[in-house]
Amino acid sequence: MNNVVLVGFMGSGKTTVGRELADRLQRSFVDLDREIEADAGRSIAEIFALEGEAGLRQREGRRLERALQEEGAVIAAGGGAPLADANWQRIRDGNTVVALMAEPAELQRRLSGSNGRPLLQPDTGTAIASLLPARMSRYLEADLLVQTDDRQPAALAAEIARQLPSVPLRRIAIEVPGAGHEAVIGTNLTGPITSGMVRLTDGGAVLLVTDAHLDKPHGSRMLEAFAAAGLRASMHVVPAGEAAKGLEVLAAIYEALASAGVDRGGVLVALGGGTVGDVAGFAAATWMRGIRYLQIPTTLLAMVDSSIGGKTAINLAAGKNLAGAVHQPAGIFADLDYLRTLPEPDYRASLAEVIKAALIADRAFVEWLQNNLTALLRREPDAILHAVGRAVLIKARVVAADPRETGERALLNYGHTVGHALERSLGFGTIRHGTAVAWGMEVAAEVSCMLGSCTSEVARVQRELLLEAGLLAHRPVVDRSALLESLRHDKKSRSGTLRWIVLRDLGRADYGVTVDAPTVTAALDRVFSG
Amino acid sequence: MNNVVLVGFMGSGKTTVGRELADRLQRSFVDLDREIEADAGRSIAEIFALEGEAGLRQREGRRLERALQEEGAVIAAGGGAPLADANWQRIRDGNTVVALMAEPAELQRRLSGSNGRPLLQPDTGTAIASLLPARMSRYLEADLLVQTDDRQPAALAAEIARQLPSVPLRRIAIEVPGAGHEAVIGTNLTGPITSGMVRLTDGGAVLLVTDAHLDKPHGSRMLEAFAAAGLRASMHVVPAGEAAKGLEVLAAIYEALASAGVDRGGVLVALGGGTVGDVAGFAAATWMRGIRYLQIPTTLLAMVDSSIGGKTAINLAAGKNLAGAVHQPAGIFADLDYLRTLPEPDYRASLAEVIKAALIADRAFVEWLQNNLTALLRREPDAILHAVGRAVLIKARVVAADPRETGERALLNYGHTVGHALERSLGFGTIRHGTAVAWGMEVAAEVSCMLGSCTSEVARVQRELLLEAGLLAHRPVVDRSALLESLRHDKKSRSGTLRWIVLRDLGRADYGVTVDAPTVTAALDRVFSG
Repeated sequence: MNNVVLVGFMGSGKTTVGRELADRLQRSFVDLDREIEADAGRSIAEIFALEGEAGLRQREGRRLERALQEEGAVIAAGGGAPLADANWQRIRDGNTVVALMAEPAELQRRLSGSNGRPLLQPDTGTAIASLLPARMSRYLEADLLVQTDDRQPAALAAEIARQLPSVPLRRIAIEVPGAGHEAVIGTNLTGPITSGMVRLTDGGAVLLVTDAHLDKPHGSRMLEAFAAAGLRASMHVVPAGEAAKGLEVLAAIYEALASAGVDRGGVLVALGGGTVGDVAGFAAATWMRGIRYLQIPTTLLAMVDSSIGGKTAINLAAGKNLAGAVHQPAGIFADLDYLRTLPEPDYRASLAEVIKAALIADRAFVEWLQNNLTALLRREPDAILHAVGRAVLIKARVVAADPRETGERALLNYGHTVGHALERSLGFGTIRHGTAVAWGMEVAAEVSCMLGSCTSEVARVQRELLLEAGLLAHRPVVDRSALLESLRHDKKSRSGTLRWIVLRDLGRADYGVTVDAPTVTAALDRVFSG
Repeated sequence: MNNVVLVGFMGSGKTTVGRELADRLQRSFVDLDREIEADAGRSIAEIFALEGEAGLRQREGRRLERALQEEGAVIAAGGGAPLADANWQRIRDGNTVVALMAEPAELQRRLSGSNGRPLLQPDTGTAIASLLPARMSRYLEADLLVQTDDRQPAALAAEIARQLPSVPLRRIAIEVPGAGHEAVIGTNLTGPITSGMVRLTDGGAVLLVTDAHLDKPHGSRMLEAFAAAGLRASMHVVPAGEAAKGLEVLAAIYEALASAGVDRGGVLVALGGGTVGDVAGFAAATWMRGIRYLQIPTTLLAMVDSSIGGKTAINLAAGKNLAGAVHQPAGIFADLDYLRTLPEPDYRASLAEVIKAALIADRAFVEWLQNNLTALLRREPDAILHAVGRAVLIKARVVAADPRETGERALLNYGHTVGHALERSLGFGTIRHGTAVAWGMEVAAEVSCMLGSCTSEVARVQRELLLEAGLLAHRPVVDRSALLESLRHDKKSRSGTLRWIVLRDLGRADYGVTVDAPTVTAALDRVFSG
């Protein structure tokens, strides 16, 4: 776990740079080829001659598996090791993968005179030309792509060290049919994001959309990283907050896409909280009938909720999120560094979505929260990594099973129906979304108990978590008839009928439950008249 | 072919109303149950007793198949005949299906004392309650739904006669995975459209979007028909022509959707040419992240092209169709009556898309056009029905195979790349889309010949069809370098590279072909310098 794995073609400098990097980081260094030779008691060339390539690959796979059990080591993988899918999966799992790149001519220069390399047949130039293209497409999937031409090992090691995340990268596959992608959770992700963009764009133009709170320094720095990697990128700044989600802002993003020369091969990057993700995602969903985009959520709420699932939207005079599209991003990068400066009330409010995720789908996570909420409130990195990873995983599974929200994806709306009604009747912006959801969860748990769907013990566990997170500190004063009226106008209603999500147990919920009006009224009364 | 098939529950009045309708239309009448009895030499009850329900259904299927071979007859099908999918498919194929409906209490009243009906066991009320729901869902798929409660057979026959199409209905399945739907081509389609809406809405609100040229009388009449069928429908009028495709018009449609109370269970109806279909379709694609909508194209161009395939878009200052979505309609109804008043130049220009469809995909249709273009130009109903049906079928197949335009759907853009560039460089609105496409087809055919992809004979056939349609009458005067520049900015370019669609033979084309600049320049020179 948390190893740095160097991959790259023969001659790319894995051993030299790897040793340099290990020294600099004061970590142990594993040179896979040397280890294989030590195990076998013979050289790679001899293994190749005696056991064939298959034999070598088998030794390589086994030795790689063992090397990856190290904690925090720097590992130089053999040039061919990443090619087997099983190896690649292991290499990526919880580790940071760095690909060292060099121009073919430079590789040939460095390899001149190596005659111990069995794959450099019939001659180095021919071997490079025939092997490089296939390998390159795998190396391009690395987290960091580092050009080594004309650079010294010490400088390269320093550059890599600067770009390494401080926590093991969490990668979560979001297996939406036809639009599968990955969420990467970690710290210091500008490098991995830039590498991701190099993979995606393939020459197309890039528009980075961010808001007026993030453009300096975050947006500008990311733009610099993109430019340094040779991307044709521009930045477009939208207003901060809910104001970003208007038709005029959308129109301005369209104009920026046109000016930036983004065509169907281009990519949009949404850097910000939920509002930026929503409006920029909607622009990506509709620009030329849909282009690829990255979600880079900068708030806890966006990381665990809005950035996942492809829902994009803008607000209209008639209501919030009324126009929108479901358009899956090409990737999601949740950089936990952004959470360090998140204001406390925002951070706490977002925990409502984390607690919600646990309650509807993951009993073990509920139990983890009971034991670790204090650490999470203190923003301890390990706790944040665990909680974000778990919440993202839950949402990823539900979204993959039902991307268009025709069925179980409704589960994610647990607490949201009353939450939205509360936001609407108090006036949007008066209460934080997460706080409103927490109260909505209280009503939903009350309804669940009244229907006999869950025990009061389940409701008690929920309440204690929400209380500990400080989310039920101020009971909102609401006009209950306005709330009921608002519930009737919910976007999720279909032909006027609203379905509820109710708790069944810790980590289990049901959706599509019809609840009669008196039960709803009684639940609202109990929760809102303290 | 072209029969009227009455379906409905026992006691709905199929025989009585059917005989009345046949008299009124002066057509022959076939009462399926009586024919089965005559064939068998015994009553339905006796067949049921002797051969069981399976035996009766077998006789019914065979007799139905024979009856449907009639031309223009009125056929009363047995209450159970439509239930078998094979029967239902035959009933719908080229015929108009009329469902007679009645409230259960009324059915029971009418059936009291019928003891010859073997399915009315143990008693009429119980039988109706158990059989009706399943049958009703099939009857609801009919073209016309006619309520018979409290109405006389003569009045019902008159109402049905008024709503019958004058040509055999053509139904074309558009089998887009996950979003399959049907295009219905015919005349006098308000009845079938209304029935379709009753099926779709299930209580949801309806917004009919049309333009300032169509709202009176067409929009209003359709709205009346919707209201008469009990639908909650409102109308929203957008400007006529390309002006409809702006962001402000889209915003106004959103507002109208909100005012009309259209939620996720609601339906939008786009009544008009391509511009209405594009902007209203985009509103449907994005309202609450996508609601169902019907395309009711009123121009030949929209019938054979823009209404099929789910492409929706609006124009931006930076270019045409730059924002949009792919969102398949729930159904398409091409009512050929609208073509009677279509201005001649518009009608002719649209034939470019018809000729294009033939050339890229259907050699037999090319040959039909060579023999029947005169009849088509005279707007002879049979010729129009054939040509529209064929063009829709071609587009339906291509779209179903590649709904997101990642591959062969590009074929449909044959002639469009240069066509669009021509429209752009002459100024949109200066030249009709179809005329521009015709010239684009000329350039594409020239390129095809120069590449050796097709023979000059193929290009000659295309040219003669376009000439006969009057589409190459005026050679546009264009600045060729502006045209080349415009080609570079095509929306279909990906990272700056434009791919061509070239003819290979009559009815065959290839997409994704790279063409070098000198060839393009030479083809443009040949076509545009007379």
